Amino acid sequence: MKQPSRVFLREVVLRDGIQQENILLPLSKKLALIEALTEAGVRDLEITSFVNPEKVPAMADAEALFSRLPKEHQGVRYSALIFNEKGLDRARKAAAQEVAVFVSASDTHSRRNMGKGTRDALEDAVMLILKAKDAGIRVRAGVSNAFGCTLEGNVPGQVVLDLVGELMQPDPDEIGLADTSGIGNPCQMRDLIPACRGMIGDKRLSLHLHNAHGWAFANLLAALDMGVAHFDTSLGGTGGCPFLPGAAGNLPTEQVHSFLTAMGIHTGIDGQRLGSCVQLLRQMLVC
Amino acid sequence: MKQPSRVFLREVVLRDGIQQENILLPLSKKLALIEALTEAGVRDLEITSFVNPEKVPAMADAEALFSRLPKEHQGVRYSALIFNEKGLDRARKAAAQEVAVFVSASDTHSRRNMGKGTRDALEDAVMLILKAKDAGIRVRAGVSNAFGCTLEGNVPGQVVLDLVGELMQPDPDEIGLADTSGIGNPCQMRDLIPACRGMIGDKRLSLHLHNAHGWAFANLLAALDMGVAHFDTSLGGTGGCPFLPGAAGNLPTEQVHSFLTAMGIHTGIDGQRLGSCVQLLRQMLVC
Repeated sequence: MKQPSRVFLREVVLRDGIQQENILLPLSKKLALIEALTEAGVRDLEITSFVNPEKVPAMADAEALFSRLPKEHQGVRYSALIFNEKGLDRARKAAAQEVAVFVSASDTHSRRNMGKGTRDALEDAVMLILKAKDAGIRVRAGVSNAFGCTLEGNVPGQVVLDLVGELMQPDPDEIGLADTSGIGNPCQMRDLIPACRGMIGDKRLSLHLHNAHGWAFANLLAALDMGVAHFDTSLGGTGGCPFLPGAAGNLPTEQVHSFLTAMGIHTGIDGQRLGSCVQLLRQMLVC
Repeated sequence: MKQPSRVFLREVVLRDGIQQENILLPLSKKLALIEALTEAGVRDLEITSFVNPEKVPAMADAEALFSRLPKEHQGVRYSALIFNEKGLDRARKAAAQEVAVFVSASDTHSRRNMGKGTRDALEDAVMLILKAKDAGIRVRAGVSNAFGCTLEGNVPGQVVLDLVGELMQPDPDEIGLADTSGIGNPCQMRDLIPACRGMIGDKRLSLHLHNAHGWAFANLLAALDMGVAHFDTSLGGTGGCPFLPGAAGNLPTEQVHSFLTAMGIHTGIDGQRLGSCVQLLRQMLVC
């Protein structure tokens, strides 16, 4: 594969970004940020998770947020992370266009994050994917901690590939691999991505790369070199998993955009407007 | 070329790191940091520049620092940046083992940083290299802003290669390419590194990569993939050029070390002791 000429960035600041920062942004500010991002050309946004609001208070307004999304932005996809059937019901009622269903390759992380081990989480995920598809909702299914876990250390590639194989059974629309701990390296990318591709055929593959140790840009390059064209990024580099120690920071949308632009790869995003989004977020986080 | 199995990191925190931060570390603290770094296994350190102390007060103790270096560390190389004949004289008297002589590929940057344009700086550099070699001092000659300039924008690769060609005439011991502005990208690395290699044969090639936009790890990977085995890094990611707007941050030594280790590439550095060096630096910068 060669580098793609067009890369698609999914903006996750309103889910992963503020979740980790534990910031309670009022609905009006979330909507203002969405407005600014879509005006900058962002066309794919994960904006919340349908999760127990007591566990993640920053996501408590999920329904309200979906109900007030700008109507005029045709071609913009809004997605949400779900963990269980209750989450799927909420997503369906809120008319979410896409749900993300992830299973952690680390049993320890899975128990902390989901309250159940990888095996049980996988069974639930397969059921959720089937039901979401039945409801006409696009499904991104994925493996978190696919490149290692700060709690468990090394995660064997075969564990990840076995999970991908099982997640493929209910035929999701996209497969995601997440370096949730930010400890994956380019050698792993170069092993796992082609192996994963071999299993999923031409189904879309997306990556979610955390930057806990500054390595995310190297992993981004390794993935680009193998033709991966879909990445999650977060405005300002905000984000991380609240249930993993030190799992700080996502790939910053603005830095990825400028990086890709410098390499002649298009994102469809206006860099200047994106810069304004960063300023807007900064003001929101200061207040 | 394939990835090297061993990579050599030159620690630049005491030159580039504190220069940018404009921190006046007392001599005792500089020596304590050097002691800790060499105990961690660092064998190559750029510790100062012989520059006008009025311009860079943090480097005013250059002679004193060289005179008090630990004697027991055989096999450790201490180098200094020089800009002119006066600097070379001072380096010679201080018994510096290596001097670095750089010419900026950006005329505007050269005038701001050196007080003269690229052409004049090159003539001086060639003379300095010859004199340093005559004095038995190892010489690293290089091109700064080799991958772009925040003041001038794009820097054509041919300009850099022409400079390398002229710097090769007096036969320096090493050629360095610096992404001083931190706006270089992997496409440029993949163009310029092989072209440079073609000109310098098996002379050592080293890279100095700034991380102003977070891209440095991608450039590091691109260079590793082409067999480059010598990089400048700075503890804590400190550093940048005081005469370039926004040229913040070097590759952090500790992140590069852990990254290389994860990929099975040896550095000869003890990660735990390196972690203690980061703590030590942090304490020094807080006080």
